[in-house]
Amino acid sequence: MLEKILELYGKKDLKEIKRLLSECNEADIAELLQEISDEQDDSALLITLFRMLPKENAAEVFAYLDKDLQQLIIETITEKEIYDIVNSLFLDDTIDFIEEMPANVVKKVLRHTEPDRRELINKFLNFPEDSAGSIMTIEFVEFHPDLTVGDALTKIRKTGIDKETVYYCYVISSDRKLLGLVELKSLLIEDDSKTVGEIMEPNPIFVNTLDDQEHVANVFRKYGFYSMPVVDQEKRLVGIITADDVMTVMEEEATEDIEVMAAVSPSEKPYLKTGVFTLARHRIVWLLVLMLSATFTSNIISGFEELLSSMIVLSSFIPLLMDTGGNAGSQSSTLIIRGMALDEIHPSDILRVIWKEVRVAVIAGGCLSIFNFLRILLLNFLSPYMNFEAVDPMVAVVVSISMFFTVIISKAIGCILPIAAKKLKFDPAIMAAPLITTIVDSLALLIYFAIASMLLPI
Amino acid sequence: MLEKILELYGKKDLKEIKRLLSECNEADIAELLQEISDEQDDSALLITLFRMLPKENAAEVFAYLDKDLQQLIIETITEKEIYDIVNSLFLDDTIDFIEEMPANVVKKVLRHTEPDRRELINKFLNFPEDSAGSIMTIEFVEFHPDLTVGDALTKIRKTGIDKETVYYCYVISSDRKLLGLVELKSLLIEDDSKTVGEIMEPNPIFVNTLDDQEHVANVFRKYGFYSMPVVDQEKRLVGIITADDVMTVMEEEATEDIEVMAAVSPSEKPYLKTGVFTLARHRIVWLLVLMLSATFTSNIISGFEELLSSMIVLSSFIPLLMDTGGNAGSQSSTLIIRGMALDEIHPSDILRVIWKEVRVAVIAGGCLSIFNFLRILLLNFLSPYMNFEAVDPMVAVVVSISMFFTVIISKAIGCILPIAAKKLKFDPAIMAAPLITTIVDSLALLIYFAIASMLLPI
Repeated sequence: MLEKILELYGKKDLKEIKRLLSECNEADIAELLQEISDEQDDSALLITLFRMLPKENAAEVFAYLDKDLQQLIIETITEKEIYDIVNSLFLDDTIDFIEEMPANVVKKVLRHTEPDRRELINKFLNFPEDSAGSIMTIEFVEFHPDLTVGDALTKIRKTGIDKETVYYCYVISSDRKLLGLVELKSLLIEDDSKTVGEIMEPNPIFVNTLDDQEHVANVFRKYGFYSMPVVDQEKRLVGIITADDVMTVMEEEATEDIEVMAAVSPSEKPYLKTGVFTLARHRIVWLLVLMLSATFTSNIISGFEELLSSMIVLSSFIPLLMDTGGNAGSQSSTLIIRGMALDEIHPSDILRVIWKEVRVAVIAGGCLSIFNFLRILLLNFLSPYMNFEAVDPMVAVVVSISMFFTVIISKAIGCILPIAAKKLKFDPAIMAAPLITTIVDSLALLIYFAIASMLLPI
Repeated sequence: MLEKILELYGKKDLKEIKRLLSECNEADIAELLQEISDEQDDSALLITLFRMLPKENAAEVFAYLDKDLQQLIIETITEKEIYDIVNSLFLDDTIDFIEEMPANVVKKVLRHTEPDRRELINKFLNFPEDSAGSIMTIEFVEFHPDLTVGDALTKIRKTGIDKETVYYCYVISSDRKLLGLVELKSLLIEDDSKTVGEIMEPNPIFVNTLDDQEHVANVFRKYGFYSMPVVDQEKRLVGIITADDVMTVMEEEATEDIEVMAAVSPSEKPYLKTGVFTLARHRIVWLLVLMLSATFTSNIISGFEELLSSMIVLSSFIPLLMDTGGNAGSQSSTLIIRGMALDEIHPSDILRVIWKEVRVAVIAGGCLSIFNFLRILLLNFLSPYMNFEAVDPMVAVVVSISMFFTVIISKAIGCILPIAAKKLKFDPAIMAAPLITTIVDSLALLIYFAIASMLLPI
């Protein structure tokens, strides 16, 4: 597609370019502009293409663009063009865009916004980040309960073109309280003379403007909605959230959790579009913190130098114990973190979770420790033929017992810490593999050296 | 809610229960039944409640239930009731349900399915797991292009009640090839005498029955659709996928990736509903595999026992180097795995990715190694006052240089392995923290001992 456009542009065949663009989906046009900006660095071509878009598509394409490109466009096009775009964007897209822009661009945009809308934008900008209020939009269809089905359909026909969805309409009282939900499907099927109040589904599921977007996503998934009403503290209908925005939220939330779980500060930009310094910055802090915590393990080992130097073979099992402990602990923490993100596990389940994990740990720890013991015995049996030293069976016992307790304590910590973090209003995802591994390392060493001191003749 | 139902049930006030249930959303009723089955273990109550549901809701509630409960219900209710439920379920829900049931239940269900539908079910069961074909449904609205808008609306009014969505309708040729998309919104707004062919959007975005569901989710997210057509190899329209199912797919795919990345075999059941033995089984295999690979690190340490025993302080830095390497490597692998899952990074980007990661690694490795060197010097400076032994500055140099190279090699491996896995058609998520950590551990040790042998007078 890009090659074709470039070729036509070279031949100055703007008419054919225009025809091609008119056949494309807006998301694809946005992707094309993005490619041009990344690879060609030709902002004249970019602006020319953007200006060729039919007015009714330009705003939608604009909403799909990255913020850098949005800024470039706003800074280049005329005041009249800004006016057209800003006033045809859906409110939620306007908010997303304004939140990302530097102050001078925001000012320029707001100057070209109609006063009512400007007031709304200011109100929306005040909702907490990642709240339902910050992702909702106001382009929804509302009815009063005494409207007839026929009139409701007429209203949709007249105003529907400017709404984000007309398929789910909401019924409100005269003081704007949310009363019910009417699907367009029901309006079509029911008799024109019935009232909306008669055919609506009362008590619809809703969310509150201050609810977290993760909660919104979980509610959507549970009920399989395409659109959900958002109410304020007085239960007045103030907006709707649509499925397409929720999909973006779901992806962002999962990505954020995955990044935090890997000790990377979350970023909203795709990997390939993030600069090297930003990538490095997002990782170094965590690496430093974890390195400092790993110092504890060094101190523990230093503290037992005497034990180690009298029996240097003990040091060869340190990585094995540390790694197994880290893996066992992060298995538990990962399942708990994900379960809490999906609203399947709550802090009040803590006792059930611990009891479950301890039993799992006994089974897993038992298997691993027996397996490890047999593995060392087998190697000992083979050692005369394979030219390496056999391990003292007593050391094998020490390692295997340590393995058992390490797995148990790792799993216990792996399930308790994320729940505790949630309780204390931290992001539970912090308590994932990297931090758990560091904590478990120290404990594994302490267990190992304690058992070694007890059982070995040193 | 549960308490209220139990109280009414105790008083035998079935009428009031029925009224309460009729006010609830189907997803909530399913949750209630699930709670009763988990906590009360009273299958008589459960069946009684299920039977009280109005016929038109029973199938939907049924679709929301866990497979254990679905099986219990099918095994208890009458043949007539089975018939009613099975024939009012949407096809995609029927398939989900049949896939999970044991053979005797499947037989019982198929016996009560109309022959046409039985044939369809068999066809759907043959689509590969996690393909678009396996999650699509066939209850969609289709038009021929010469139908008028008025007739199209009449068709929707007549048949719409049985369709999964009527908001996105598809236009097909006489040989069932997909021609276009018509939103119900356009049908309402346009003149009744126009034809569907005139107002349709031609060339709609579609997916193929054999496309992976992860790809489907990415396409949905990109375009913000509520419904998408699915075509077969000959581009004939065979089904649609709706946003609610895609949200479930997105959640499942993210959970599966997160679990695999934590070395847990993925499970479809929520954590709290999974038994201890199943949980243990899903973890032990990976723990064993990783434990065996960690044996390499033990062997490496054994191989350098002489070096270690002549300078036991070296062993105290082993965990620090291993942990930092593991963390640095899993940061990279996590970002790459997630980027590939979201279709933002492709195997063909491998050189760009490596070049990016190497530069990030030089920055991060440089910072960490300088920081670590200064930290050891600071501790040395404090050691006389704090009663511990100072570290030979040359050892600090060895540790810091090793740290630098460990971070670089870890990040390189962390980005190469997931891409290689994808290229070889393995799940890239396998190449996450646990496996990367184990591989990086060995390399960190080899680097460390090599540099120590070179620089230290042993």
